[in-house]
Amino acid sequence: MNVLLVYAHPEPTSLNGSIRDFAVGRLRQAGHHVQVSDLYAMNWKACLDADDSAAPREPRFNATAASRHAYDHGLQRADIAAEQEKLRWADALILQFPLWWFSMPAIMKGWVDRVYAAGFAYDVGEHSDRHWGDRYGEGTMAGKRAMLIVTVGGWESHYGPRGVNGPIDDLLFPIQHGVLYYPGFDVLPPYVVYRTGRVDAARFADIRETLGRRLDTLATAAPIPFRPQNRGDYEVPALTLRPDIAPGAVGFAAHIDRGDGGQPACGTAEGGSTNSR
Amino acid sequence: MNVLLVYAHPEPTSLNGSIRDFAVGRLRQAGHHVQVSDLYAMNWKACLDADDSAAPREPRFNATAASRHAYDHGLQRADIAAEQEKLRWADALILQFPLWWFSMPAIMKGWVDRVYAAGFAYDVGEHSDRHWGDRYGEGTMAGKRAMLIVTVGGWESHYGPRGVNGPIDDLLFPIQHGVLYYPGFDVLPPYVVYRTGRVDAARFADIRETLGRRLDTLATAAPIPFRPQNRGDYEVPALTLRPDIAPGAVGFAAHIDRGDGGQPACGTAEGGSTNSR
Repeated sequence: MNVLLVYAHPEPTSLNGSIRDFAVGRLRQAGHHVQVSDLYAMNWKACLDADDSAAPREPRFNATAASRHAYDHGLQRADIAAEQEKLRWADALILQFPLWWFSMPAIMKGWVDRVYAAGFAYDVGEHSDRHWGDRYGEGTMAGKRAMLIVTVGGWESHYGPRGVNGPIDDLLFPIQHGVLYYPGFDVLPPYVVYRTGRVDAARFADIRETLGRRLDTLATAAPIPFRPQNRGDYEVPALTLRPDIAPGAVGFAAHIDRGDGGQPACGTAEGGSTNSR
Repeated sequence: MNVLLVYAHPEPTSLNGSIRDFAVGRLRQAGHHVQVSDLYAMNWKACLDADDSAAPREPRFNATAASRHAYDHGLQRADIAAEQEKLRWADALILQFPLWWFSMPAIMKGWVDRVYAAGFAYDVGEHSDRHWGDRYGEGTMAGKRAMLIVTVGGWESHYGPRGVNGPIDDLLFPIQHGVLYYPGFDVLPPYVVYRTGRVDAARFADIRETLGRRLDTLATAAPIPFRPQNRGDYEVPALTLRPDIAPGAVGFAAHIDRGDGGQPACGTAEGGSTNSR
């Protein structure tokens, strides 16, 4: 497979740097082709603005219209076009980052904001009262796989079903469902390392073992069974779950098809199991 | 009151610009003092890195250690220190942004990543197996209020309890709970504008009416009743809800004290009601 690893950490000799190096080595040993977008090393421009297009400036900058025009007419900044080309090349995308304030670092959010152009990652397909775009399971990335590698300073229990920070799978839902599944990726359960301040040689050996297994099954592991938007589960254009789909269930978990007949589950800590499970 | 409005939109003449101007005017008419941090206009540096401190570079950059050292020794970059000073000055913080990929734009995430220094917004208070920091209801921002103003392209139903994108209150939980409540802010329900592509004069009049009421009650409205970390609801150091608190409930909603005796509710679309409610 062709694998694109998008990596956001300011320190090459960090735990994240070691994990990245291990992942790249493991994938290459298995015969995969790997490209790395090291956003800090690339001095990635984080902020979406009018400079992202070579088109003459409109009096009033509209992010979607400008993105669409630049994408359609080959007027995108070269850094954006290059990342899109890597995404087209890739069979699998890995986003690796430390969890900062319960989300990705700004530099990686800026990769999403800018690379995910209108016509490329959104605003794809028919948009009408009958069909609200090719998204959530369809779109440019359909058929490709994606996975998060996330490092977290706190303890696993802090991110458990009743942990104070909220369940990790719910915290990652805006990324896994909203950033990855939206343009069509099949999203594998995330690989999460907790308590990063206390990673000694024994724990790093465990990371190599468990992450190694995850990378070895990148092409075959079952993705999180998010519900495709256009399979019939949702009313259009309201885009709410049909009454007979997971009746009574609300929240993130309702958008995962557990094949359990749609019984509502209390709470939402079900966004895909992590790590070795 | 002193109100800090942190604003992230690249186009001054956008709907967001109009909403900001209205909000600032309304607050000033009511006698409040207002400062605006217009992040795009400030050309805000989004990416946290070793340049955020004037201290000599360590061979290996550790974000938390560098932030702590710079904060403690007056070695932070001036832009960071200035924003912290505004936060100290403020009685209320408003974050205003368009929802991009189900979160804030990169430039505002970079405001959080960089301004929220160690010793200022995290790593505050005793950290031990008995007390895991002054956070979630305690901390530097305790006694201050905060509110989000968010614009959204999609329909309200797309962000409802069973909407395809996930409930807006759950999508905003990492910000409202993780970014605002964590350092101590009391968080008011968000003000959300949907379907921003279709705001005509009548709808903008409605925005003025409903947002105006929200701004008029900024000092008095009831905050979202998130559970304080150190009130006894959580086990320490696991930081999981005590078994007798909201027994059986999991997910984001379990961290909101509805005063209902802790009956588990199915789903989590309960993160504070929005707008006119």
